Amino acid sequence: MRTITWNDDAQKVEMIDQRLLPQEFKINSYNRYQDVAEAIQTMVIRGAPAIGAAAAFGLALAGFQSEATSKAGLMQDLKSAGEFLKKARPTAVNLAWAIRCMQKEAVSFQGTFDDLREHMLASAKAIADEDVEINRRLSEFGATLLEDGDHIVHHCNTGALAAVDWGTALGVIRMAHEQGKNIHVFVDETRPRLQGARLTAWELEQYGIPYDIITDGASGYLMRRGLVQKVIFGADRVAANGDVANKIGTYMLALAAYDNGIPAYAALPMSTVDFELERGDLIQIEERDEAEVLQIQLMGKRVTPESASARNFAFDVTPARLISAWITEKGVIYPPFKANLKAALAE
Amino acid sequence: MRTITWNDDAQKVEMIDQRLLPQEFKINSYNRYQDVAEAIQTMVIRGAPAIGAAAAFGLALAGFQSEATSKAGLMQDLKSAGEFLKKARPTAVNLAWAIRCMQKEAVSFQGTFDDLREHMLASAKAIADEDVEINRRLSEFGATLLEDGDHIVHHCNTGALAAVDWGTALGVIRMAHEQGKNIHVFVDETRPRLQGARLTAWELEQYGIPYDIITDGASGYLMRRGLVQKVIFGADRVAANGDVANKIGTYMLALAAYDNGIPAYAALPMSTVDFELERGDLIQIEERDEAEVLQIQLMGKRVTPESASARNFAFDVTPARLISAWITEKGVIYPPFKANLKAALAE
Repeated sequence: MRTITWNDDAQKVEMIDQRLLPQEFKINSYNRYQDVAEAIQTMVIRGAPAIGAAAAFGLALAGFQSEATSKAGLMQDLKSAGEFLKKARPTAVNLAWAIRCMQKEAVSFQGTFDDLREHMLASAKAIADEDVEINRRLSEFGATLLEDGDHIVHHCNTGALAAVDWGTALGVIRMAHEQGKNIHVFVDETRPRLQGARLTAWELEQYGIPYDIITDGASGYLMRRGLVQKVIFGADRVAANGDVANKIGTYMLALAAYDNGIPAYAALPMSTVDFELERGDLIQIEERDEAEVLQIQLMGKRVTPESASARNFAFDVTPARLISAWITEKGVIYPPFKANLKAALAE
Repeated sequence: MRTITWNDDAQKVEMIDQRLLPQEFKINSYNRYQDVAEAIQTMVIRGAPAIGAAAAFGLALAGFQSEATSKAGLMQDLKSAGEFLKKARPTAVNLAWAIRCMQKEAVSFQGTFDDLREHMLASAKAIADEDVEINRRLSEFGATLLEDGDHIVHHCNTGALAAVDWGTALGVIRMAHEQGKNIHVFVDETRPRLQGARLTAWELEQYGIPYDIITDGASGYLMRRGLVQKVIFGADRVAANGDVANKIGTYMLALAAYDNGIPAYAALPMSTVDFELERGDLIQIEERDEAEVLQIQLMGKRVTPESASARNFAFDVTPARLISAWITEKGVIYPPFKANLKAALAE
């Protein structure tokens, strides 16, 4: 099943609870946008495109929850719900982007007040379907960069679980594998939430792609040992100059790739680029509860002294100078990012 | 108490079981060198200088265990025990170094057969005492590099627990703190065994030094944010050209420091330098059981799919070009390592 879907019979949004994988595969159902916002905040669903889809479906729910009796009233409720959903997590561009898309659909809808709610749902479904299509296209472009025999370091989770289906960086890997290329993945575990060890490993098992898990601090040494040919990761937000904000740890991984002459690729839909931000250090970086660092997973068992505290930045910024190419649904963008992105968009 | 000591009443070696900290403070006792070797291998005791002291005491135990009736027979038993102990872990120079020291003491001992065993114990105690003295001296030199207000990233554990008492990189931090400098430490947790989160955090609590725990992939971002002034770590073995083999993750940490213009210091006793190895990639890097990566700590609870596998290199190599200075008991050695080390040794 998809990471997130609409259940027509139940008239609910359903999503895999990613906090429980791989030990437990559980589907959660939602009929209130406030609960969807909480699901985003607590990382029941995570991954930039998935968050966007969740926000879109959340807004569709808001339409059904609304007790307004006029189009203006419904629009107002949708606006409030959109603002509420946007607060869930600040870094990924997709959340606000999806809300904006949905709001545009609402504003430009010519139909009746009664049909607007259904149109909101149809728009959310369209956003989800388009995400899958975009992922496949960018995965095809990206797969051309991977070669038979490649050992690839992958960070965090960027597969079907991070999107609606298919995914970005992991989608590139999956596409290359399905095209018959023999590839192997070094999955860095990605502390604190272990999206690599738990989610990416789980997906690779499903796809039958060989992998080994490594700790986040090990990839540099594997590269020095000549065991790695490529590095690939996703992006939560890309600045106008190509700087990439992505899961914490990406910057150090890209640095190690650069130091060893290994290509580091960022895979992302064009919608990830925020043209209003000139460079990466302007991107708002979420800081989360220190408990995620002080405890391991949901075990609730502390491995640290009782009175320890922690800093928990969820993302970091990888400067454009460390990125070998940006893989998008419009093609592979090589440096210089700005000029070549402009050219790709113009086509 | 010291990390490792000799209990005269019990005639046993006692050591803190570092696998259990910080939740449990337990002392293990040993009267067989084979058990000491196992304690080293399973990381009951870890940290380069501590491993050396453990090997020395292990050899002293071997002397008491021997049923030889002649000096030649005892020497043979000590030789066998030394070879056995050396196999426990390959990367740190201190283990083989301590065995060599002890063998030299045995060979050059002029006393009687009966007194040789006691001499072995006295030699082990001397190695331990000297380690504390060396640590203090290098800590004094290193403390001059830390400034009031510094926020310092520290990797793994290099304090009292990594040595007999006091420690190296953490000893530098402790010395600066005791001299009245206001410093704060970012303790990276150091997966897979979490020596940072468990052991360094525990020591800093004892010393009253403020700290925050971070994940291994976060230090680079903290540096980009301007939150870090210094980076310091220990060393398990240093090549003749200054390349440093240390706990996995050190290389990526040093790379990030270099990229941000932040000094990265390696703190180590002179005995850590292996003049027979020209450069770092000749250092044997231990690979340990994948279970350490696939499970968290002693919880035995897997966070990964049942059929997942892992690579688990315990150390990596940081090239000399990324080291700002090597802090030793003979002073701070600035680049170029070879020439300046030679000069320091000549004094």
